Amino acid sequence: MIYTSQALESLIGELSKLPGIGRKTAQRLALHILKSGNEDADRLASAIVDVKRRITYCSICLNITENDPCSICADQSRDHTSICVVEDPSDVMALEKTNEFQGVYHVLGGALNPLEGITPDQLRVKELLNRLGGGVKEVILAMNPDVEGEATTIYLGNLLRPLGIKVTRIARGVPVGGDLEFADEATLVRALEGRIVV
Amino acid sequence: MIYTSQALESLIGELSKLPGIGRKTAQRLALHILKSGNEDADRLASAIVDVKRRITYCSICLNITENDPCSICADQSRDHTSICVVEDPSDVMALEKTNEFQGVYHVLGGALNPLEGITPDQLRVKELLNRLGGGVKEVILAMNPDVEGEATTIYLGNLLRPLGIKVTRIARGVPVGGDLEFADEATLVRALEGRIVV
Repeated sequence: MIYTSQALESLIGELSKLPGIGRKTAQRLALHILKSGNEDADRLASAIVDVKRRITYCSICLNITENDPCSICADQSRDHTSICVVEDPSDVMALEKTNEFQGVYHVLGGALNPLEGITPDQLRVKELLNRLGGGVKEVILAMNPDVEGEATTIYLGNLLRPLGIKVTRIARGVPVGGDLEFADEATLVRALEGRIVV
Repeated sequence: MIYTSQALESLIGELSKLPGIGRKTAQRLALHILKSGNEDADRLASAIVDVKRRITYCSICLNITENDPCSICADQSRDHTSICVVEDPSDVMALEKTNEFQGVYHVLGGALNPLEGITPDQLRVKELLNRLGGGVKEVILAMNPDVEGEATTIYLGNLLRPLGIKVTRIARGVPVGGDLEFADEATLVRALEGRIVV
């Protein structure tokens, strides 16, 4: 028997299941929780239970929400004729932080990945098509800049273009604050292709 | 309002309080918990509550334990005349994994750090002295190899030596699997000083 506590061992086990948390980090976190006050631990535990109990999916954009429709879809001051398509709820969070986009979202639930069996049927593509009736003018594709995201962008582009809706994709280029010297070639090629007049 | 869920926001907040977990990691973890099954989330939440409720400190070695005395102190097959002094419970875990040490432990609860107000009174030094009556033959000092650990080792060495008990400290040197080329000078000096006949 290595550890002297089954409760600690089981907390370490549960924490190790989280993404990016290895056994050593899990042990450090568990010991921190053990050292911290009772209220802190209780707050964390009930936040975990709450998040599962209170959160559901918006029936319009399929983003996570506590109320259906979500506060973005329910907000009449936003531009409902412009739909930004993203892979995951975390992408909505990232875009919302910018305060730049004033339209609404559509969460696909992933990206095309035939090798892992993710086909258009597994994604919320049908739900996207169903939304395009009501005067939608532009669909902005904001997939992750990787192979799967690229495949999804091409697929959706081909699917939506014939419907007479303007389909755009977010720009790829050198990230702000980055260093040209350390940018990879693919990024530099995209940055050159996407150059704009100043 | 950036996020569409107060429950998610509050879980992210609680997770960010953990050591080494920044806001982005907390968000990733929170979304993972949201995606995972209800049982997984419940198990994690109850493991957190359990660890606080069930774990206490061993009245002998001051290590964390569910039963007092802890399973190490209660184990009569271990050598109770040899006490290994460590800073934290995680150090006991690390040493126990080696299966090398068959004695018992004493957890100081930190290391001397006058700048942060950690004096011998804040550590379990008195509790250590109280244990030395019963035929203890050797005290092994296994502090962390940093400035605070070094200060604690010197302090405890000076304190215990006059009591006629053998006081040793664990070896410092090049770590196994490491590369001499990348070892820092202080480590190499200790490795040379601590050389043994082969």
